[in-house]
Amino acid sequence: MATKPSIPKGTRDFLPEEMARRNYIFDTIKSVYTLYGFQQIETPAMENLSTLMGKYGEEGDKLLFKILNSGDFMNGLTDDELLGRNSVKLTSKLSEKGLRYDLTVPFARFVVQYRDQIKFPFRRFQIQPVWRADRPQKGRYREFYQCDADIVGSNSLLNELELIQIIDEVFHRFGMRVAIKLNNRKILAGIAEVIGAPDKIVDITVAIDKLDKIGLDNVNAELREKGLTEEAVSKLQPVLAMGGSNTDKINELASILSSSETGMKGVEEMRTLFSLIDTVNIRCAVEADLTLARGLNYYTGTIIEVKALDYQIGSITGGGRYDNLTGVFGMDGVSGVGISFGADRIYDVLNGLNLYPEATTRKTQIIFLNMGDAETAFILPVLKRLREAGVPAEIYADAAKFKKQMSYANDRAIPYVAIVGESELQNGVIALKDMTSGEQCNVTPDELISKFVK
Amino acid sequence: MATKPSIPKGTRDFLPEEMARRNYIFDTIKSVYTLYGFQQIETPAMENLSTLMGKYGEEGDKLLFKILNSGDFMNGLTDDELLGRNSVKLTSKLSEKGLRYDLTVPFARFVVQYRDQIKFPFRRFQIQPVWRADRPQKGRYREFYQCDADIVGSNSLLNELELIQIIDEVFHRFGMRVAIKLNNRKILAGIAEVIGAPDKIVDITVAIDKLDKIGLDNVNAELREKGLTEEAVSKLQPVLAMGGSNTDKINELASILSSSETGMKGVEEMRTLFSLIDTVNIRCAVEADLTLARGLNYYTGTIIEVKALDYQIGSITGGGRYDNLTGVFGMDGVSGVGISFGADRIYDVLNGLNLYPEATTRKTQIIFLNMGDAETAFILPVLKRLREAGVPAEIYADAAKFKKQMSYANDRAIPYVAIVGESELQNGVIALKDMTSGEQCNVTPDELISKFVK
Repeated sequence: MATKPSIPKGTRDFLPEEMARRNYIFDTIKSVYTLYGFQQIETPAMENLSTLMGKYGEEGDKLLFKILNSGDFMNGLTDDELLGRNSVKLTSKLSEKGLRYDLTVPFARFVVQYRDQIKFPFRRFQIQPVWRADRPQKGRYREFYQCDADIVGSNSLLNELELIQIIDEVFHRFGMRVAIKLNNRKILAGIAEVIGAPDKIVDITVAIDKLDKIGLDNVNAELREKGLTEEAVSKLQPVLAMGGSNTDKINELASILSSSETGMKGVEEMRTLFSLIDTVNIRCAVEADLTLARGLNYYTGTIIEVKALDYQIGSITGGGRYDNLTGVFGMDGVSGVGISFGADRIYDVLNGLNLYPEATTRKTQIIFLNMGDAETAFILPVLKRLREAGVPAEIYADAAKFKKQMSYANDRAIPYVAIVGESELQNGVIALKDMTSGEQCNVTPDELISKFVK
Repeated sequence: MATKPSIPKGTRDFLPEEMARRNYIFDTIKSVYTLYGFQQIETPAMENLSTLMGKYGEEGDKLLFKILNSGDFMNGLTDDELLGRNSVKLTSKLSEKGLRYDLTVPFARFVVQYRDQIKFPFRRFQIQPVWRADRPQKGRYREFYQCDADIVGSNSLLNELELIQIIDEVFHRFGMRVAIKLNNRKILAGIAEVIGAPDKIVDITVAIDKLDKIGLDNVNAELREKGLTEEAVSKLQPVLAMGGSNTDKINELASILSSSETGMKGVEEMRTLFSLIDTVNIRCAVEADLTLARGLNYYTGTIIEVKALDYQIGSITGGGRYDNLTGVFGMDGVSGVGISFGADRIYDVLNGLNLYPEATTRKTQIIFLNMGDAETAFILPVLKRLREAGVPAEIYADAAKFKKQMSYANDRAIPYVAIVGESELQNGVIALKDMTSGEQCNVTPDELISKFVK
């Protein structure tokens, strides 16, 4: 095998530095989730196809990675089935398991399966990879991590508040300036209702979503194309023109939507949420934003989206409330609300703005060079004491050339190099080189320990 | 869908308590690896089948989970191929990717692929799930985590020493008494050589491995059955009877193996390793043990195995040295040594001996009950201050019945419950209930904060 090995397209290896940065992201999110009382779970990479199929639309079914059945999978197929070469039909014969496509459907399955063991309201978080047979492109991978938190079994808007606080805290820890944008599906439904086009909610919100990109005239043209009457388009104009503070927007919506029960419920939810937000002093900007149209096929209340302020990239976190997560698995009446941090995009922003703390990637503090067996015997107990004190430390394993060892320490960006040669050994000292300043001095083992252990 | 959803056999969901315990295991191993200067990497769940096939023997090839090609995978198959119904042959037409079977082969692929970016000696660790289409049974799963550390690009026995120190430290942190057993493939090869049966090394070691279970007579009978001559069996007796201290065993081996260059090299390696071990004061017992026969198809030097002393279970950690990890991918001369912690078995032992620190599963310290909006408005800033001080804390999101909320706090085993009802609100205090003692007292917000923030 002479060809250089490779990995499947759309997948990634993570080298140590990249890995350390990713861990910084996951660990930060994890510790904030824990601070807010969320409990971690994990589900298997593989789910039964019966769990996954039909949950992500027809396109989603195609994008599921399916596992070939083990053993003699060709047995039991008729000649007609085989010669028909219908890949879609044969999939169900050849495969009964698929890789998880997101964390939401496995979580819904989990809630139903363990309903008797779970204490509701259940605050769970889950950080695991998902797989999609999408066409790979820049920033879109076939394997990527999701970082979800959901609260199920509670209708209270306090849950929305806490998720917003979590977002605020996470990005504060990252040192990233962000804006949190809020919408409410009930408001969107109310708008569709009062302009007399209740069945056009998706078209309307998709159009609203494009306002920034294509401008008011084009949005109106598109709405007419989608079958909205002139009257409906005209009634929609105050919504499209809406501006001012969050309170202004909410007051205006209350007046526009006064005839719609659903719409007014949405307005009240948003009003309550903003007044809760006022009690806790959120650091980042929180804005009511009707152009938010994410997840309209499943969100039923609050919709949340987060944008980075200092870096050009799509939404870096999103979420919302759904009324019937588990209905498809036969358990009705479970309302939930959740968010998902987009780890890959956050990674890009932190890289782009150079926001990683230095300690993220610099783990090993000191390396002992290897000058031979006698010197090593002197070093090993000192090394052990450093590690016992919690200082990540290494010894170069081979008595290689000095230059090679120094170059290793340098490449690894280890801040201190400790050298014990013949003369140091005779005097019972260690030559300690500060790789940043280039300074070098002799220290006793005790002095070395106290330098590193604070 | 009325049937209760389930997951594929041999896979597992991890509920919060289980998850917290597993995290304790992974985090402990991870922090010790880091202390010893190992750097974490990750590889994709899917590898090209060309990377995986043929690396685990014929049986292993069958146990690989294969991913069905996306799109119109039936196209391009001839009628003959289809009607032949040869599942093994068709696999290569229907699938070009498989799930990783272990962490070693992907690591070898990684080393070759990134050889120009890696600084050798490369100390990497990797903690990820692997998948095997094994028949599921008690303690054997189709998805399980491996926790590997390897050093590649160094022949020094200091690497073996450090891996042994890591094992010692990890199990010390777990509070588990273990014995570390050492063997050396070169010694086994030397034995086979000096008794005149160099091609029988596997039969000999498998037989030696059974000594404890089936006794000397049966082992000898089995050896004869495998084709060993009477002379060979007789020459092997001193090895089978060998006992005493590590030094005794090494000295005896040196005398038995004096005519075998390979054997003497193994003896010298073991002698050096034990003398290195003496310099660093390992807490657990380290024993030379010739009955260790793990991984003989790839280990070429030191073989390591760890047994729990206070719990009946198979090997809980293992590893060894291999001379040509990456040869199969076209890169020769890379020697390495590694270990792998058996997380699932360690989990069982810690459970069985009840060794988990209480803090492992008890994260949330305090929950505020919800008596209504006014009370909540009083609570939210206090809750925020607690979290800012790093205290995991919750509020019950709904103003549900008092009993229901208390029962939730109790079920979740949250140690403190904070209650603000009408009278507490009037007096600006919080009723704090210690759920362990049952005691309750009123505290001001400041008093509450200082109680939890030390």
